[in-house]
Parts: sequence; structure tokens; C-alpha cells
Amino acid sequence: MSGKRSPARRPTMKDIAQRAGVSESAVSFALNDRPGVSEVTRARVRRVAEQLGWRPSTAARQLSGEGTATVGFVLARPAHTLGVDSFFLQLVSGIQEALAERHLGLLFQVVDDIDDECAVYRRWWAEHRVDGVLMVDPRTDDPRPALLEELGLPAVVIGGAPEASHTRLSTLWADDAGAMAAVVDELHTLGHRRILHIAGLPGLAHTQRRVRSLRAEAERCGLDEVRSVTTDYSDAQGAAVTREVLSRPAAPTALIYDNDVMAVAGIAAAAGLGYTVPGDVSVVAWEDSALCRMVRPRLSALSRDSVAFGRTAAKELVSLLDGAPARTVRVPLPQLIVRESTGTARA
Amino acid sequence: MSGKRSPARRPTMKDIAQRAGVSESAVSFALNDRPGVSEVTRARVRRVAEQLGWRPSTAARQLSGEGTATVGFVLARPAHTLGVDSFFLQLVSGIQEALAERHLGLLFQVVDDIDDECAVYRRWWAEHRVDGVLMVDPRTDDPRPALLEELGLPAVVIGGAPEASHTRLSTLWADDAGAMAAVVDELHTLGHRRILHIAGLPGLAHTQRRVRSLRAEAERCGLDEVRSVTTDYSDAQGAAVTREVLSRPAAPTALIYDNDVMAVAGIAAAAGLGYTVPGDVSVVAWEDSALCRMVRPRLSALSRDSVAFGRTAAKELVSLLDGAPARTVRVPLPQLIVRESTGTARA
Repeated sequence: MSGKRSPARRPTMKDIAQRAGVSESAVSFALNDRPGVSEVTRARVRRVAEQLGWRPSTAARQLSGEGTATVGFVLARPAHTLGVDSFFLQLVSGIQEALAERHLGLLFQVVDDIDDECAVYRRWWAEHRVDGVLMVDPRTDDPRPALLEELGLPAVVIGGAPEASHTRLSTLWADDAGAMAAVVDELHTLGHRRILHIAGLPGLAHTQRRVRSLRAEAERCGLDEVRSVTTDYSDAQGAAVTREVLSRPAAPTALIYDNDVMAVAGIAAAAGLGYTVPGDVSVVAWEDSALCRMVRPRLSALSRDSVAFGRTAAKELVSLLDGAPARTVRVPLPQLIVRESTGTARA
Repeated sequence: MSGKRSPARRPTMKDIAQRAGVSESAVSFALNDRPGVSEVTRARVRRVAEQLGWRPSTAARQLSGEGTATVGFVLARPAHTLGVDSFFLQLVSGIQEALAERHLGLLFQVVDDIDDECAVYRRWWAEHRVDGVLMVDPRTDDPRPALLEELGLPAVVIGGAPEASHTRLSTLWADDAGAMAAVVDELHTLGHRRILHIAGLPGLAHTQRRVRSLRAEAERCGLDEVRSVTTDYSDAQGAAVTREVLSRPAAPTALIYDNDVMAVAGIAAAAGLGYTVPGDVSVVAWEDSALCRMVRPRLSALSRDSVAFGRTAAKELVSLLDGAPARTVRVPLPQLIVRESTGTARA
């Protein structure tokens, strides 16, 4: 073991004053953006502070009313379902790109369900831990927006509907209806008439939007053997639903899965029943990922830039923290990437 | 839009005093664990404080020298490589289970490389943001342990080697050598003599441990056509290496991949060259995941409980924060789960 060094010392306002050749109060005025020093001195003090690596402690900043410089992100998903979900890590990575520009930290928490998520918001608020939060997976009947408004915590809802906004709550709106229309159009053009949508959790707002838009689109195209089944997003349920529907007479010729994991499990289940993809049945996955490109046949999938999505969400939250009014921002429509899992319907 | 409510008010010591029928100073004594009140009063005050949902603000706690009640976790991986990596979300989920028991928050940051990671540690330290950190992916030549010691930040290295520990730095030691021995033993028993190990990033300490232990194990079994090739962990490199080695004369009959993603990509690449798995070539993945169970053939893989791994790491950090000495903890050996991708070597 090497000789023990004493831990490094954080630079203080006194160090800055000495190095810059000014008084400590001049340093305080300069760094706290208050009058009492010339602009030349202010600039010099800031330069020295930067050279020394000085930063206000979060505690001091917080007690002086400048906030915690931290935003929160809670993911209410049981640990075992986090398995292969690439979306959230990509999202977090984009969030952090935008937060880094403002030296904002991200307090991240994984919890089991939405009740625990509400408890986390209450605790963060009581402990003054965060200035605002990013919220995902909005529900059809969601207690969180009202709670966040009650607590006075600015928030951005990721993947919400336009109606979700209120005073301190902005919404990033993903156009699921438009994306679903593109998928049904493609399958319809390939001659498919019997289409099954293996959806995600029934309580999520975007699941409901996708189910509704599938029905609307089917009506528009005059297709009457089109329907949705909800699941828990797991590979197990994706496989089970697939086995069940493909064993019936007049089985669907096209399957739309709400995530990549269910689509891959579904293809394996179909193969187990002797179905080939896309010869006997076409498959589309809602979320493109490395997984979709790795499996054989390569999966046709709806692709969006999750990193950019996270970046936009964090920027909206920063705007709210800066005092801008809440608003609804529409993110780009996901693109359907046609690979090897879709083909003409079997006669 | 509903009528605007004023934000909720955090309960204060005054509220607790009124409800408990005692003075404010009695509340302060009771909640700050100081003498001056009877044990009966202390108990009543604490009960009322809990009922009202009172918590000390993190800023107040921090300035009174009780720390930030926050630990940090930086992941130095470029966003695009976070694709299908399930290990880290599972790990984070386990970390949080253990932190939640102590009401500790997790400040989480994804950065591009280890230099950025060091910059984050310096910033967190300067801003008093965290009490300690969890560090992953130790390298063969790693600047982080010395930096963390210099900053006086307690830390737990996840997946380190025993020698990495110092005064405030505990290590969770995964026995890669033991796991590699189990894999080589299994393949040797199945008659394989030409084995290729498609490893991960060459700079990581655990990559080097696996490469060394493969060589030692091959020597022990008297196998002289066994070697390792390093990659960047991506599906693209996993596929490229596979295509290259299977196109040569005296191609390997067994492939060991350092993650699940490369193994799946490798199987697809092998199929593209007309090789069947496990008929022509056996495949083992180092990290078990939902992916390994979903693809066909189902992948034989080394399985470990990543959630438990995270839980253990966080508990070790909590011990360090409580003043316990640093130590090295050995986590359970990963188990080889034999599924459909391994079989007897072709004659």
C-alpha cells in the first residue's frame, strides 16, 4: 500500500481572492452576480475561479435559493423486466448530454410501481433533492401530473398526449397514431388482411393510443380482421400470444409487436409451430434496436432516435426551470425500416 | 385547465412542535439526537414527524456535516454501445434496492470515456454532490482509484481484482478465472480441441483475467489450439471475427463470446457461411440474459445474478460510509447454463 496522502482541498473564495489580488467580498460580489465590483474585476475573478476549479457547493447554492442543480428520473419497472430494454439507457444518455451543458446532475431511481414512484417524488420534494423531474410511461389514469403540480415540481412528460400539460408540466408528444398508420399501410399494400397487434401494458396511455389508431386505420382501409391484444411486454407473453393465435383457423398473416423483445420471442414461437417468417407470417417490431438487426430474419421495425428524444426532453425541463411556460413538443414520427421479416401475404 | 392550487408546503419543526404539544427547541433536540428531552418526548416527536412526512433538507444535512445522502455511479460507455446491454440496468436496480433502505439517492451519469469519468468525479467532489461512488469496468492501467483516494471519496470497485483495494476503496471480486475454467472443462469434455475466445475490450482488467485464465486452462488440459481475440463488444465485431475465423482451414469448433450480443451476432454470421450451431460449431456466451433464452438455438451461457451483484456493491459502499474499513468481497462464481448451442465436437 502506498503512503497515505491527505485528501485534496477544495479551493475557497479566499484562495481566489489571493490569486486575483482582490478582497474576499469582491470575489463574493463577482461570483454571485451582484453589483459592487467593476466588470474588469468580475471577469478576472471568474477566470481565476475557473483556473482553480472552484464551484459553489450544492448545499450553499440550495440554501441561497438557487435550487439543487439536480433533476430526477424515476423508472417504474420491476427489475426483471428491465432485461433487454435498450430504450431507457439510450434515453438517459440523451438526457445527460443536455443536462451536462448546464452542469445539472441526474438523480435516477428504479422502483417497482407507480405508487412507489409517487412516494419517491414526495421524498425528493421533502428533502429538497431535485428542481424538477422527467416522467415516463404516462397512464390513462395517472396520479402523477396532479401530484407534481401539488408539490410544485416542474416536470416533462415523455411520450404523453397533448392534453396532459398544465402550468409547470411540459409534454413530449410522440405521434403513435401516425406511426401505426404507416405500419398498417405497408402491410395492407403487401396484401395482408388479417393483422394482429400484440400490444404492451393496457394501462399505458401510448398503448391505448396505438390500439385506437390501429382500429381507425383498419376501418379506413376496410379491414375487418384486425385487432389488438395487450401483454406485459415480456418475451414470455409475446411467445404465448403468438402460439395461441397461430394455432387457430384463419390465423393472422401479419403480427405487429409493441417491442423488439416480444417480436423476437414471437418469431421463435412461430418457428416452433412450423411457420416461416415472412413466408407464412410477416412481423413488425415497434422499437428498433441492435436486437432487430442481429436476429435472422432481420426484423422490420419502427425506428426513432431515442438519444435525441432524451436530449429534447431534458432541454424542455431546463426551459421550465429557467421560467419558460409549459408547452407541448411533438417529436419526429418514427420511421418504418423494412428489413427481412415482412413480405407479401400468403394467398 | 383546472383551478391552480398553490404548491404543497413542507412540514416544518414548528408544525411538529404544535402537533406534539412541545416547544420547537424540544423538537430540534429530539430530531437531532441531542440531550435535553426525555425519551418519551423524543419518541412522540419522532412519531409526529413521521406522520407529517417531515425530512431534513439535504442542504441542511450537508452543511451540518452529515453528508449528501447521495452516492454516484458513472458509466463510461458511448451511448450507441449501450444498445442491448441488460447487465447495467439490472446492476443499477440492485444498487438501488440497497440504497433505498438507507434513503440514499443515486446520482447517475453516462459519459463517453474514462477521462470524462474522472472529470465527473472532480466536479461531484468540488460541488459536494456525493458521499461516495460505485466504479465499474476497472482497467489494467486505471487512473481512477488514485484519483478517488486523492479526493477522499469512498468507493467500491465492481468487478475488480483483489489488489485494487486501498484505504477507502473496497472491491467486489468476480472470479473470472474460475468461470473460464468451467467453460473450457465443459467444451473439453465434449471433445473440442480448437477453441476461440472472442473477448471484449483489451484495456479492461476482467478481459485480461479471462484471456490469462483461458491460456492457463488450455495448458492444464493440454490443448494447444486455443486463443483469444479482443473486440469492442459490439455485434458488428462479434460477427466480423466469427466470419474471419470460420473461413480459415482448421477453424475452431467452439466459440466463447464475452457477451450475449456478440454471441447472437456470431451465430447469425456462422449461419451465413453455412455452419450450423451446435452441429458444426458450439457457442457459449459469457453473460446470460433474456436474449440468450429468446434466440434459436437457445444459448448456453454463464449466468450470474446481476441484481444481487448491485445489491452487494451498494451495501459495501454503505459500510464504508459508516466508517468500516475497506475490504475485498468475492461474489458467487457464475454458473454455466447449458442450453442448445453446445454439443459434441464434429469429428
